[in-house]
Amino acid sequence: MIIVMGPGHTEEQLQAVIRRIEEMGYSVHLSRGVERTIVGAVGSKDKTPLHALQQMEGVEAVIPILRPWKLAGREFKREGTVVDVEGVPVGGPKIVVIAGPCSVENEKQIIESARAVKAAGAVMLRGGAYKPRTSPYAFQGLEEDGLKMLQAAKAETGLKIVTEIVSVTDLDILLKYADVLQIGARNCQNYALLRAVGQARKPVLLKRGMSATIHEYLMAAEYCLSEGNYDILLCERGIRTFETETRFTLDLNAVPVLKHLSHLPVLVDPSHGTGHWRLVGPMSRAAIAAGADGLEIEVHPDPANALSDGAQSLRPAKFERLMEELRRVAEAVDRTL
Amino acid sequence: MIIVMGPGHTEEQLQAVIRRIEEMGYSVHLSRGVERTIVGAVGSKDKTPLHALQQMEGVEAVIPILRPWKLAGREFKREGTVVDVEGVPVGGPKIVVIAGPCSVENEKQIIESARAVKAAGAVMLRGGAYKPRTSPYAFQGLEEDGLKMLQAAKAETGLKIVTEIVSVTDLDILLKYADVLQIGARNCQNYALLRAVGQARKPVLLKRGMSATIHEYLMAAEYCLSEGNYDILLCERGIRTFETETRFTLDLNAVPVLKHLSHLPVLVDPSHGTGHWRLVGPMSRAAIAAGADGLEIEVHPDPANALSDGAQSLRPAKFERLMEELRRVAEAVDRTL
Amino acid sequence: MIIVMGPGHTEEQLQAVIRRIEEMGYSVHLSRGVERTIVGAVGSKDKTPLHALQQMEGVEAVIPILRPWKLAGREFKREGTVVDVEGVPVGGPKIVVIAGPCSVENEKQIIESARAVKAAGAVMLRGGAYKPRTSPYAFQGLEEDGLKMLQAAKAETGLKIVTEIVSVTDLDILLKYADVLQIGARNCQNYALLRAVGQARKPVLLKRGMSATIHEYLMAAEYCLSEGNYDILLCERGIRTFETETRFTLDLNAVPVLKHLSHLPVLVDPSHGTGHWRLVGPMSRAAIAAGADGLEIEVHPDPANALSDGAQSLRPAKFERLMEELRRVAEAVDRTL
Amino acid sequence: MIIVMGPGHTEEQLQAVIRRIEEMGYSVHLSRGVERTIVGAVGSKDKTPLHALQQMEGVEAVIPILRPWKLAGREFKREGTVVDVEGVPVGGPKIVVIAGPCSVENEKQIIESARAVKAAGAVMLRGGAYKPRTSPYAFQGLEEDGLKMLQAAKAETGLKIVTEIVSVTDLDILLKYADVLQIGARNCQNYALLRAVGQARKPVLLKRGMSATIHEYLMAAEYCLSEGNYDILLCERGIRTFETETRFTLDLNAVPVLKHLSHLPVLVDPSHGTGHWRLVGPMSRAAIAAGADGLEIEVHPDPANALSDGAQSLRPAKFERLMEELRRVAEAVDRTL
Repeated sequence: MIIVMGPGHTEEQLQAVIRRIEEMGYSVHLSRGVERTIVGAVGSKDKTPLHALQQMEGVEAVIPILRPWKLAGREFKREGTVVDVEGVPVGGPKIVVIAGPCSVENEKQIIESARAVKAAGAVMLRGGAYKPRTSPYAFQGLEEDGLKMLQAAKAETGLKIVTEIVSVTDLDILLKYADVLQIGARNCQNYALLRAVGQARKPVLLKRGMSATIHEYLMAAEYCLSEGNYDILLCERGIRTFETETRFTLDLNAVPVLKHLSHLPVLVDPSHGTGHWRLVGPMSRAAIAAGADGLEIEVHPDPANALSDGAQSLRPAKFERLMEELRRVAEAVDRTL
Repeated sequence: MIIVMGPGHTEEQLQAVIRRIEEMGYSVHLSRGVERTIVGAVGSKDKTPLHALQQMEGVEAVIPILRPWKLAGREFKREGTVVDVEGVPVGGPKIVVIAGPCSVENEKQIIESARAVKAAGAVMLRGGAYKPRTSPYAFQGLEEDGLKMLQAAKAETGLKIVTEIVSVTDLDILLKYADVLQIGARNCQNYALLRAVGQARKPVLLKRGMSATIHEYLMAAEYCLSEGNYDILLCERGIRTFETETRFTLDLNAVPVLKHLSHLPVLVDPSHGTGHWRLVGPMSRAAIAAGADGLEIEVHPDPANALSDGAQSLRPAKFERLMEELRRVAEAVDRTL
Repeated sequence: MIIVMGPGHTEEQLQAVIRRIEEMGYSVHLSRGVERTIVGAVGSKDKTPLHALQQMEGVEAVIPILRPWKLAGREFKREGTVVDVEGVPVGGPKIVVIAGPCSVENEKQIIESARAVKAAGAVMLRGGAYKPRTSPYAFQGLEEDGLKMLQAAKAETGLKIVTEIVSVTDLDILLKYADVLQIGARNCQNYALLRAVGQARKPVLLKRGMSATIHEYLMAAEYCLSEGNYDILLCERGIRTFETETRFTLDLNAVPVLKHLSHLPVLVDPSHGTGHWRLVGPMSRAAIAAGADGLEIEVHPDPANALSDGAQSLRPAKFERLMEELRRVAEAVDRTL
Repeated sequence: MIIVMGPGHTEEQLQAVIRRIEEMGYSVHLSRGVERTIVGAVGSKDKTPLHALQQMEGVEAVIPILRPWKLAGREFKREGTVVDVEGVPVGGPKIVVIAGPCSVENEKQIIESARAVKAAGAVMLRGGAYKPRTSPYAFQGLEEDGLKMLQAAKAETGLKIVTEIVSVTDLDILLKYADVLQIGARNCQNYALLRAVGQARKPVLLKRGMSATIHEYLMAAEYCLSEGNYDILLCERGIRTFETETRFTLDLNAVPVLKHLSHLPVLVDPSHGTGHWRLVGPMSRAAIAAGADGLEIEVHPDPANALSDGAQSLRPAKFERLMEELRRVAEAVDRTL
């Protein structure tokens, strides 16, 4: 931490700050400049943070220097993590595509979806059985019935199952059916849920909150890691900005930034991130070119009749053509798909 | 819903859209303009929304017309709701001030805080026993021990207790101690939690998510209302913007907008909303002038040593002076405090 | 400036950074911590900034410590500036209200507006003769004819004239008619225009750009000040955020922040800041309670037929009632109106 | 335009709205729904917009249906525009790379830069002689001397010259030296400047304002087009969001959205858009994969000593390797570089 003493601070104010820092167990480095005095508080990041020193007389600013995470960072683990999802490696040279409908609607729909995305090259099936919907009056998912349909689709196709958890109380049942537990953007800072999945021994796909800074997002991952679950997949899915032509602003900058700061695999969800099927193709290609380790794409056999997210889902035929395009981009950046 | 057919659409495309709308149980009003054709889908808001029609050929845009909420809106209830918190009315002519520390740290701290804020005129005590902290390594709250300390503070001062719930699994214990269940900004769209407190018979203070639009925020309230809990207090607490001089951007515009759209009481939290004690005074005065029904303010006997949120807490003496100022502003807008 | 050397940097990298800093004329303070090494570069703010050191091997971050402005800050001038607008002080105890239509449309409209706002207590008249419109096909203003109508309104009422400059090439003609040159939000970082009005000897009302941070905004003011014009009025008018219920998010937090950082007077424009006449009243009251030195409010004799900004303009009768309310709030914060 | 009459409106209010719409020259289509009445105002987009009807009693919302632009849209011109820059086509199958330093600093620097970027495959040279700097105390450019150095670099390498215009008063001199006039993000809505370059017969590279919606951005282009200049190059360069790990959030979603809405070529500036040299590579690759027609990249022979933007500039050797990578991505999306 760096504490900046403002112009016109007194020597007594400075000494009071120094005493307080030392009381909290840090050692002090002092640097008197022309217009400001800088007090460096040296110590490990386990100590109490010093933000509250902003309350002391004469202090202009308190500036953190250390990154707040431990386990999520490249400092902790230099090489990239490869998460094993029932034999499917995520974070290695092969780019992983998760595809399927927003919600499981019925057995026919999910099995048809599974066959189609498998044929096109996807290795995991997405499908929600517990849905976090903006409206309490909207379709909320089939719950365990939906999970059983996912299980049937897995039996049929071999695809691994990625499905969302919205409450701690559903964890046990989800552990029976899911290969990857997905945490949606609205629960990105639901710390009770993060701790619970952190205690489970099952890979977690943690979506970036739509207003989570990259720092906060890595701290959300840190909640899971600090409970002992190292199998965390990050996933950029669009942030809130002023732009209204897209539903969210898919922030592809986050891909290289996260890969630089963290060893965890980074996926991208262009379907939720843009909200328009027309943008899914270009943004999927761009995500791979930016260095993403995988994609999560909504595919529905009949989007215009989907119970949720129809506007952003691809038809199977479009998805198949997209996969062809993605293969070429993957090769151009020395990856495979 | 209004469906806009783009330039160059064919008659077949138009007829297909009309058929689909009618199949979904809406009736159709057609309006052929110079450059666009407008298809109005008339029906109640209980029907499936039509967003997925964006997938159909020839469709340029799908525009919702009806507000998505039912119970939260002024259409449902013309006059403002007054929520009774154990005899304290919120939403009436008297402005309610909730004050206290971010976290309950020990019995001395919370009782000292309670006495100070009571003396200055607060009617409810805030204090977290379960804390949603950005870092898993930060102080996470005293849990039930903290709740007991709040109970002691209530016994001593008569202040009603406002405390946060972060997980469905803590609901039973919180119902024993809390007079108001607070849901923090990061859980504003944690729908499992919203449903759970909606089923409880206890007032809820629901903070606006930092990236929740006012529409989404009212839909979050609707989750509680639709479960039968009508005692919902709204609370603006700052949204995420590009500005970094404040921790969040306290959006006071939300006060008159929410009062216009909804019958629910609207509070403001200037402490979290700005992140700086220096801004709490001006923004509290402004909140009342803008029409807020109450304030939630962080007060700590020794902010520079607080375990959380020290930078934004007021000392008791400052809070007392602020209450004097607020009384004058309240009178200037024909309210009392 | 603080240069943070990342984990794993070598001694050679550190020495290279130190050499570079010294070559650029700064002296160096070194602080070796447990996980990072901090290099402080001490020197005045006139020196070349060191951001480019981010390019050097081993450097993790470059953090500025000094505020970048000189003349706009409280460090330069402790007491608040009172700008004299032809005898009307702005920035003193009396709150100043500027009112009038968005655009000058014809002589009758502007004189009627002037009489009405004068009667209600405004001391300056706003009205645009050169309009920066989003669409090239929208009404662009009456230019010099409009300025003459403003002159007539001034002759009739004594109100000072506030009118917008959109181009350096219009400066001479505007200097003949305007008492205050207004620079709109879209030109807040039009540095050529800022320099030009900085060289003029006429008060400037500089609106905050809708994506200008407070730092950038003060640097925009600094452009005018550095050319010798000290009569700068700041004006918050809404920033771009994700919220769509308001046209912009009027950021009242900026009022106390600007008053803290700068000695310049701070006004608020609730009409453009919200985009809805219904919000102008509450946000005007709130602006005064937050400490604003003045308001700029759109008033039009017939808003539903206005050539621009009709949706956010007040009718004269509404404005008159609002002025009554504002007087009471002003008194409650020890100001007059 | 669609006018929504709120719940509880009276028949008189409805008739008043209809009369007003007809007076303004539109014809009316009426659609009475269960909870709302919709009034469609049918007419061409040349008519006065109806936003001000929000002031009328009973009106809940006024919703525009038509896109506000004429010449910038795909409706006006179906096929993509190819802009000819002195023989270099922009917008065709070949992706165009503009590269060079932020500012022209001296003849050696600009000629060295020009040779390096030419050798790597760039076809145009960027370099600012008139600089819009956030601080009035920062290097402001060499003005005409800088333009002469650019001319020398062009004579030496044949690269076309892209350089920024910051004021209408510099137009004549810039027309002598520039092949493309660049308008920076801060001047994106400087309408006086847009009109001026719209009257010139010289290609314009118009950067997206950092808070310009895509609608506003296309309306800025419309200003130039409506003056008769059809040679407009669009360029996404990062928008303002809450994220601080990047200087701006480069919005690649804008690429497919702009290509869908408009016929104009779309470029991307990953250097300003991210602010970090480390992100320029991944985001350049992603931009091409998303469908961009070109890139503008900052390259400096010695970034750590650059007078501006050193932190985001590439060294020539890095740029050369990047161009190799970009060639492969371009081929993967059936383009060349």
